[in-house]
Amino acid sequence: MLMKNKAVLNTADLLYGKFGLEREALRISQNGELAKTDHPAVFGDRTKHPYITTDFAEAQIEMITGVHDTLEDVHRELVMINQMVARTIEDELLWPYSMPPVVDWERDKVKIAKYPDSKAGRSAREYREYLNRKYGNGVQLISGIHYNFSYHEMLTHKLYEASSKDDNTATSNKDYKAFKNDFYMKVARNYINYHWFLVLMLGATPTAVGVDEPDAVSLRNSKYGYQNKVDLNLSYDSLCAHVASIRKAMAAGKIMDEREVYMPVRIKCPNKIKLMNCLEEGGIGYLEIRSIDLNPFAFAGITLEDLKLLHLFMLALLELPEKVDFNPKELSEYVALKGRQLNDETLTIVKAVYEKMRQINDEFELGYDDLIDEPKMRCSGVASADFMELAVKHKEEALAKPYQTYGYEDMEMSTQLLIAESVRRGVQYSVIDRRANFLRLEANGKREYVKQATKTSLDTYVSYLAMENKEVTKIILEDAGFPVPVGQTFTSVDQAMNSFANFKDKEVVVKPKSTNYGWGIVMFRPLETEIEFQNALEIAFGFDSEVIVEKFLHGQEYRFLVVGDECIAVLKRVGANVVGDGKSTVAELVGAKNEHPWRGTDHLAPLEKIVLSDIECHNLKQAGYNPESIIAEGEQVFLRENSNISTGGDSIDVTDDVHEFFKRQAVAAAHAIGAHLCGVDIIINGELSDATAEYGFIELNFNPAIHMHAFVLEGRGRNATPYVLAQLGLI
Amino acid sequence: MLMKNKAVLNTADLLYGKFGLEREALRISQNGELAKTDHPAVFGDRTKHPYITTDFAEAQIEMITGVHDTLEDVHRELVMINQMVARTIEDELLWPYSMPPVVDWERDKVKIAKYPDSKAGRSAREYREYLNRKYGNGVQLISGIHYNFSYHEMLTHKLYEASSKDDNTATSNKDYKAFKNDFYMKVARNYINYHWFLVLMLGATPTAVGVDEPDAVSLRNSKYGYQNKVDLNLSYDSLCAHVASIRKAMAAGKIMDEREVYMPVRIKCPNKIKLMNCLEEGGIGYLEIRSIDLNPFAFAGITLEDLKLLHLFMLALLELPEKVDFNPKELSEYVALKGRQLNDETLTIVKAVYEKMRQINDEFELGYDDLIDEPKMRCSGVASADFMELAVKHKEEALAKPYQTYGYEDMEMSTQLLIAESVRRGVQYSVIDRRANFLRLEANGKREYVKQATKTSLDTYVSYLAMENKEVTKIILEDAGFPVPVGQTFTSVDQAMNSFANFKDKEVVVKPKSTNYGWGIVMFRPLETEIEFQNALEIAFGFDSEVIVEKFLHGQEYRFLVVGDECIAVLKRVGANVVGDGKSTVAELVGAKNEHPWRGTDHLAPLEKIVLSDIECHNLKQAGYNPESIIAEGEQVFLRENSNISTGGDSIDVTDDVHEFFKRQAVAAAHAIGAHLCGVDIIINGELSDATAEYGFIELNFNPAIHMHAFVLEGRGRNATPYVLAQLGLI
Repeated sequence: MLMKNKAVLNTADLLYGKFGLEREALRISQNGELAKTDHPAVFGDRTKHPYITTDFAEAQIEMITGVHDTLEDVHRELVMINQMVARTIEDELLWPYSMPPVVDWERDKVKIAKYPDSKAGRSAREYREYLNRKYGNGVQLISGIHYNFSYHEMLTHKLYEASSKDDNTATSNKDYKAFKNDFYMKVARNYINYHWFLVLMLGATPTAVGVDEPDAVSLRNSKYGYQNKVDLNLSYDSLCAHVASIRKAMAAGKIMDEREVYMPVRIKCPNKIKLMNCLEEGGIGYLEIRSIDLNPFAFAGITLEDLKLLHLFMLALLELPEKVDFNPKELSEYVALKGRQLNDETLTIVKAVYEKMRQINDEFELGYDDLIDEPKMRCSGVASADFMELAVKHKEEALAKPYQTYGYEDMEMSTQLLIAESVRRGVQYSVIDRRANFLRLEANGKREYVKQATKTSLDTYVSYLAMENKEVTKIILEDAGFPVPVGQTFTSVDQAMNSFANFKDKEVVVKPKSTNYGWGIVMFRPLETEIEFQNALEIAFGFDSEVIVEKFLHGQEYRFLVVGDECIAVLKRVGANVVGDGKSTVAELVGAKNEHPWRGTDHLAPLEKIVLSDIECHNLKQAGYNPESIIAEGEQVFLRENSNISTGGDSIDVTDDVHEFFKRQAVAAAHAIGAHLCGVDIIINGELSDATAEYGFIELNFNPAIHMHAFVLEGRGRNATPYVLAQLGLI
Repeated sequence: MLMKNKAVLNTADLLYGKFGLEREALRISQNGELAKTDHPAVFGDRTKHPYITTDFAEAQIEMITGVHDTLEDVHRELVMINQMVARTIEDELLWPYSMPPVVDWERDKVKIAKYPDSKAGRSAREYREYLNRKYGNGVQLISGIHYNFSYHEMLTHKLYEASSKDDNTATSNKDYKAFKNDFYMKVARNYINYHWFLVLMLGATPTAVGVDEPDAVSLRNSKYGYQNKVDLNLSYDSLCAHVASIRKAMAAGKIMDEREVYMPVRIKCPNKIKLMNCLEEGGIGYLEIRSIDLNPFAFAGITLEDLKLLHLFMLALLELPEKVDFNPKELSEYVALKGRQLNDETLTIVKAVYEKMRQINDEFELGYDDLIDEPKMRCSGVASADFMELAVKHKEEALAKPYQTYGYEDMEMSTQLLIAESVRRGVQYSVIDRRANFLRLEANGKREYVKQATKTSLDTYVSYLAMENKEVTKIILEDAGFPVPVGQTFTSVDQAMNSFANFKDKEVVVKPKSTNYGWGIVMFRPLETEIEFQNALEIAFGFDSEVIVEKFLHGQEYRFLVVGDECIAVLKRVGANVVGDGKSTVAELVGAKNEHPWRGTDHLAPLEKIVLSDIECHNLKQAGYNPESIIAEGEQVFLRENSNISTGGDSIDVTDDVHEFFKRQAVAAAHAIGAHLCGVDIIINGELSDATAEYGFIELNFNPAIHMHAFVLEGRGRNATPYVLAQLGLI
């Protein structure tokens, strides 16, 4: 079908599609036993969770991606869900192999998944008890990958249009829905014809305890696997015949319902509950491919390469002849059990399938050349693999960069954390603009849009504009009776210089009216010369056309993170500094400090590396040092006057040390400006626990970095994302 | 006091202060009679209106400014309030002279102001009836300027500090409040000593019907004016003595309460209702200067020059000797009635006062040199002035630029309209950041902050971010089921060029992802060559790092203005064009079109002048013309493809022609994105009145220009500002 219509088809028509993945995995303890713990409570109601639920057993986690347009996207999401599960199950591991670990198979040792006492929960529980009675619970623990797939709508549509122009009137009279039903039934028939090819290439269960099949590639896809007790005799001639045959099998008591159809492919449509009605009314939506073993070497149970092979195979099905001179069922069992030593006859058919895949790849420039040029059977190495070692390796990979959400590393850190928490809590997320860090979040029948994790519907438009404008912020806080430093706004260096006399010999801060990250701010303690004032003004005017000169408030500055009516974290930030050891130079101390795994560059890590730029050297010089100076043991030398994390500062969580009064003031100030998600900067001159200490508000931030509180250099990290989701009414 | 402390005082200490103005004026008909109409209902409850109320008579408007730091600001506001009154009283005029026009003085001909049936309203009414019985109603119509004044807090504070260092222990033991009380009482005493100087310089009521005083400068400040019936014998020795003497006069039945103290100066504090308690507890807040006649040549009843003279005089009071060898009361009456022919003795004192003012101006570089070098008595010319002519002239001035709010011409037009409407409706406004067009609005016990008139708390932060991002806007509208054009986003010219084949021969729009005013948008109908596509992409990428290419929707684009749950205006915008007359060149037609009084440049007028730039010439060329071509009669030639007003387009109000369905769709789309103040751009392909016409959403604007709907080239203008104020809960 593809080659025939190559004139109208392009690369994108073939490469895109709709892809969804499900991956089952068993939770195990550090010593390799099936976990006895419950499914983590933080995941919430498993009957509603879009990403993480349980399969048959309580310890059998099922991870489900959303529907994506590309293999890259769907794989990325599966990796990420695996990462979130690994992070959440504490010191438990995920068994990476499709066949279960050696366990005591006695029925009572495998806990059936515990469902809540809701309608959906009771139904799920009853179904599992039925399966348990019928198939026993050992075989239910076999885990795999389910691949939900439909071709690009453009492809089927173009094929439909081409077929309409055919002379064949039988085709040209069909409407698009009927065409698609026939098309997918044909694909399903061919899938059943050729699915042994996938078993051969992607099979990865060559061994199991008590089974002696030295040439096997996929015991899971053989008689040792999970199969219906009796032949269901399903028809694939047409959608109508197929649905009728499932109903017949149900009526005959062979299966309870369509969920029990253990064929390598299922015909599906979006409504999974009323599948058969939906199929009859709306037509076929997609195919569920069920032959894929877990790839134990892959973190997520499947690699992107595996998926590409699978996709290319699905395209090849459109070209492969439906009429075959082998018995698909027999060939399938043969390949599953003897795949590592195939006979020549079978190898010839394998090569033919391969050749078709190569043709398609070359003709449509799919870019899968590596895959084709070096065909690899996945099961190599699996027989001798140490699955516990792999489980530990996967776990380590999941925990390696706790501030990253895999697959989204290019996004802003706060957004990565929010995606992670959404996935954990069962909030459906979609990245609607990746570069802009724009998400759509849905749960509880509610839909919210969020930019950069903290720009939400919780704040008003004008509250953001007020916070963005430092002068307006001060006016509003003053209006509401909060203490703010007295200052003046200038629109030119000359204008400000005229007021030099007002600031001379006083402690003042010169800062751009609106800026971020503390850029362009200079402090004087006190201001002495006109020339230093002018320099500071010129720096500040480099960031904004208006500059504020205000009284310097004494004390230490703290960042209060307000979400809703709560102050959930308080952070002390200390300007970039080193502490001497009597031996190392400043440069060496900086180097050592920069080794911390959370220090990175360009805001890609929670802490920034210290850079020895002109500003740092200037400050060193002021303190009587240079980068090559050796600092005495225990002496702290500051390299920056500003305390921002983004210029190499240290972060120290002090949430539990701050008096409630200041937290309440932070919340009240945020509310005064109309903000409910706000970073409030307060200077406190005295003990944090002393409610009578002098204090003043410095500024309010409309886009507070929440990762900064989650990954602190000292103290306990605070994760704001559950509070954000709760405020948005999503959890 | 000033000269003695000149070492610690600077210019700003003397120039700044707190200034407030009240101006009374009579509404008159076009033929000069006292207006018989009611105070305009649009002003709302006059007992609560901060800017516009009534004085004694229903036709006697009182305009009240807020408190300002500079004379410029307070004068600007008074001008503006006058403008708003003039605009609101339809074809009535304001009588510009302090003495009332010739009217039938019989009691029943002057309607006493009608107050609402509230507590405040009944009290105001009763007081006026009492005054009417006691003084008659003719004299009550005499109008003037009240000047509420306090020195810069910095000045009094510095004088206090200086006095504390004095040897004089009587002074140094005082606290600041007591010092200020004594200080202002001394100023009041000196004001009473010298106020005849102000009467001489600023007096402007030389004539009145039935009075024969050829040398008078201010009948209003003489026995012909508004004075207490009996001497009140008030003490000015100290605040305590002063309050006691008022209480005594009240107890003796000389006056009803402190409002009836008709002295040239009153001692005041912020709480006007419980004035005397407030004075005793909080001390003196400011002085109310009552000697100033209306300047009939000034639009607002007083000029900025007048105010400067007044201010300099108030400063001079701090230097002038309190012990005088003249009788202030007698001198005052003499100056009021004989001021135009003063005896030498008086002239000598005048010169002494002047000299003091000159000294202060020179010493502290106040910049009032013009005022000092050319002293002018204000009453010159008043005797022979035609007040009706002046009234008409002032009215014309008020109506000259309906889209401007005087004193705020540098601000964005929508903000000017919102200020105007706030003043009209009694919403207290403050400009908290002029360059940023940031306002504080207060009424009904509610406070709101507004930027650029339409950036308010009505919208959420994320709704703005969603509207700013055209791609996200489309996704959200699609999510909610609204029709939007299909498109694709690109991040580079090359990436987009790769998709040229997808767009070739199709009608497409190339536009920057986020931009304003229609900048950088190119349309193709259809797209033909790669080179034109590349050019358009390069233009669009000049405005944003991401560019959208989307299907062109056929039809006419309309701007729907949504406020809250209502679509209050619909505008059709037609791209810059001219219609030929068979004689004029394009350049001449453009010139003629640009003559419209509402066409300006740089967004300072509701419509923009058409510019014959490269783009216009390119379009002319496409149509087969150049700027010197003569266009046939009735032929319309378009100079722009985009329809934005900002590039010279025409605006046509079609609110009443649009089917309700589209208005409801516009409101629903705004709500879908979380916006309640929104400009919704919809393309409709068919009749506006046909709800079945094909349509699609182009974009949503978070900062819709509201002036655009108020001043249209064709159709009825729609003023959105009352709706905005109502949505904010302020009216």
